Amino acid sequence: MAQLKGNAIVGQSGGPTCVINQSLVGVIEEVFEHDCIEKLYGSRHGSRGILNEDFLDLKAIAAKGACCGKKYNSEFLNRVAYTPSAALGSTRDKPDAAYCEKVFEVFKKHNIRYFFYAGGNDSSDTARIIRDMGVKSGYELKVFHIPKTIDNDLCGIDHCPGFGSAAKFVAQAFMGDNQDNRSLPGIKIDVIMGRHAGFLTAASVLARQNETDGPHLVYVPERNVSMQQFIDDVKAAKAKYGRCLVAVSEGINNENGEPWAKVMAKNVEKDAHGNIQLSGTGALGDFLVSKLKEAMPGERLRADTFGYLQRSFAGIVSESDATEAREAGRLAVRYACTTNDMSGSVSFKRVSSSPYKLEYYRNELENVAAKTRHLDDAFINAEGNNITQAFVDYLKPLVGDVPQMGYLY
Amino acid sequence: MAQLKGNAIVGQSGGPTCVINQSLVGVIEEVFEHDCIEKLYGSRHGSRGILNEDFLDLKAIAAKGACCGKKYNSEFLNRVAYTPSAALGSTRDKPDAAYCEKVFEVFKKHNIRYFFYAGGNDSSDTARIIRDMGVKSGYELKVFHIPKTIDNDLCGIDHCPGFGSAAKFVAQAFMGDNQDNRSLPGIKIDVIMGRHAGFLTAASVLARQNETDGPHLVYVPERNVSMQQFIDDVKAAKAKYGRCLVAVSEGINNENGEPWAKVMAKNVEKDAHGNIQLSGTGALGDFLVSKLKEAMPGERLRADTFGYLQRSFAGIVSESDATEAREAGRLAVRYACTTNDMSGSVSFKRVSSSPYKLEYYRNELENVAAKTRHLDDAFINAEGNNITQAFVDYLKPLVGDVPQMGYLY
Repeated sequence: MAQLKGNAIVGQSGGPTCVINQSLVGVIEEVFEHDCIEKLYGSRHGSRGILNEDFLDLKAIAAKGACCGKKYNSEFLNRVAYTPSAALGSTRDKPDAAYCEKVFEVFKKHNIRYFFYAGGNDSSDTARIIRDMGVKSGYELKVFHIPKTIDNDLCGIDHCPGFGSAAKFVAQAFMGDNQDNRSLPGIKIDVIMGRHAGFLTAASVLARQNETDGPHLVYVPERNVSMQQFIDDVKAAKAKYGRCLVAVSEGINNENGEPWAKVMAKNVEKDAHGNIQLSGTGALGDFLVSKLKEAMPGERLRADTFGYLQRSFAGIVSESDATEAREAGRLAVRYACTTNDMSGSVSFKRVSSSPYKLEYYRNELENVAAKTRHLDDAFINAEGNNITQAFVDYLKPLVGDVPQMGYLY
Repeated sequence: MAQLKGNAIVGQSGGPTCVINQSLVGVIEEVFEHDCIEKLYGSRHGSRGILNEDFLDLKAIAAKGACCGKKYNSEFLNRVAYTPSAALGSTRDKPDAAYCEKVFEVFKKHNIRYFFYAGGNDSSDTARIIRDMGVKSGYELKVFHIPKTIDNDLCGIDHCPGFGSAAKFVAQAFMGDNQDNRSLPGIKIDVIMGRHAGFLTAASVLARQNETDGPHLVYVPERNVSMQQFIDDVKAAKAKYGRCLVAVSEGINNENGEPWAKVMAKNVEKDAHGNIQLSGTGALGDFLVSKLKEAMPGERLRADTFGYLQRSFAGIVSESDATEAREAGRLAVRYACTTNDMSGSVSFKRVSSSPYKLEYYRNELENVAAKTRHLDDAFINAEGNNITQAFVDYLKPLVGDVPQMGYLY
């Protein structure tokens, strides 16, 4: 096949992460290495920006201020790479076939032959639909998905760019909160993001550096828990440790498999639209505290909901996550420009955990699109209220160094 | 006066900070330099530990594993110093005269002649009461207070150890959340600690690196705000920026000077004890969102409450804050052992902001005890919904370096 010449477009989609701009910068840097790509458009706010033809000329922006004979301004691009959230803007749009048709028309209009899309499983599905339109209509288009999510719930990949940095935030937050709870003993609940998968909540256990350290209990969406069991568990942990630190996923379910956030909403005021929100509200944590208060009167009870800080906090980045996200962006371009493959999703295979070694490869979009990965059974204890050493071994290289706590007693 | 010989005790009190252990380690290190102090007791959980005679032998603990001819194990003490929260444990007890009398009896029993107490304005008042008991009864006792609070609400000091690190956390959190809000535009409220003083909430403005960056509105307890004004402000900011990021202190008051958290609680369920909690709950943020939802139907609205992460997050420390907190601990011991002063509070005077230069001095306990400092008028804008450059100039050296954001547009 002759090399496909034309323009490229890159977009970012879904909930941002602290390293999604690493992938973006990886795309920009790599595009400069391949003559087949003329212009590189940056779509503002993902698929919506394509529809609106709201583009940035990324090669021009990157070239500004370049020095020392370089094609782009590395210092500037590095600053963008280490900036949390989507520098192009993101979108919550979930394109259907009609929406994708419009996107496809814009591609044809601007001679866009390369589409790089950073996002989660919905975004890979969008990429798949658009690729199929190209195939069907005979318009040559290369479509590559760059994985991104703090939830780590993408299939066909050892772990997902964005997860390691969010996990690092959660681990360090729990490290501090464990010291706080030790210092002023009581019962503390921390609510973590993750609607369907418990990876990020499970990352809280990396905070443990001493045998009495919390979190003492960890609840993930993969295991149902009744309110009675929850209360009994907290009482037992309190009796054992004189305090209790609990990690709770926003997506936990009751004994019937219904989300607690939904069950709770039956008893509390809904918002003006009748919506039940998971993130951006402290309602679930406050609800759990209210239930514990009834069962354990007089206890010091608090709940924090980590909220958007988990995915956006500036300055807490896992270095391996940053490196891998950058490389994922670069590889998307390299796969597109140097192979005959018309589509794919950049994927990671772990060769070993210690020393940590990763292999990158091209996965089929079909293996990623619209699928959700869950915590392995081996990562959850038999009681369904804690996380195993196997998960810690899996997680450690993804997070890298964390502060070491000092104990006087 | 002949040098006072005897034992010393150190305690930590109130809500912990990320550098209160720096002060503790400063005390431990300095005690090794002064022969007048024989044993150094660490009281577990502040004044409560004194009552219960629940002591650690800190010189023995610090000496363990010392090498290279040193008197104490520096590596271990440094790890303790960089561990957030109170390594000795803290307490919420606010001792009255009878309580202090018991504390004083324990001092006499153990020949304690030096009392070092790290805490806020309540703790300095406890220190004052106990010092007066010594004077009255003729029992020679030196009492030194080491300032500590993330709220920065202590009088007679340029700024308080603990504030700079919490301010750094808040600034970096807003930096990321501003990018998140820019990426997925909407209205976002972040609730910050500070019941009576707005310093920590004001620190959010350090996140601004670009003229459209948030926070776009900042509400502090020092200025009343009606719900209508709040709604009008948010609408105006949304119209101007296409989004709106708001920093709200947990202690904000309505037009009658009543705390919003209290007004709100009239309309919502109170807990089992009828208590209104400010920290450790997302209720205020959720309440403000519910009011905005009524006024701005269809808007994307979210609230996060930063909670205990602000005072305990492991790994976010202002280096100047850490250095100053350590020095405050050292100086408390030095003042006690090398001067005739029987009591005092370690204090800071700013010589200049640029270059940043500080002078340390001994303040009278009376100047600190049971007083609350508020944001200077010059730090708040005329409308009462934002923070001035004067505050940024005041704050910058206390926080130190923060990540630099990169912008594609």
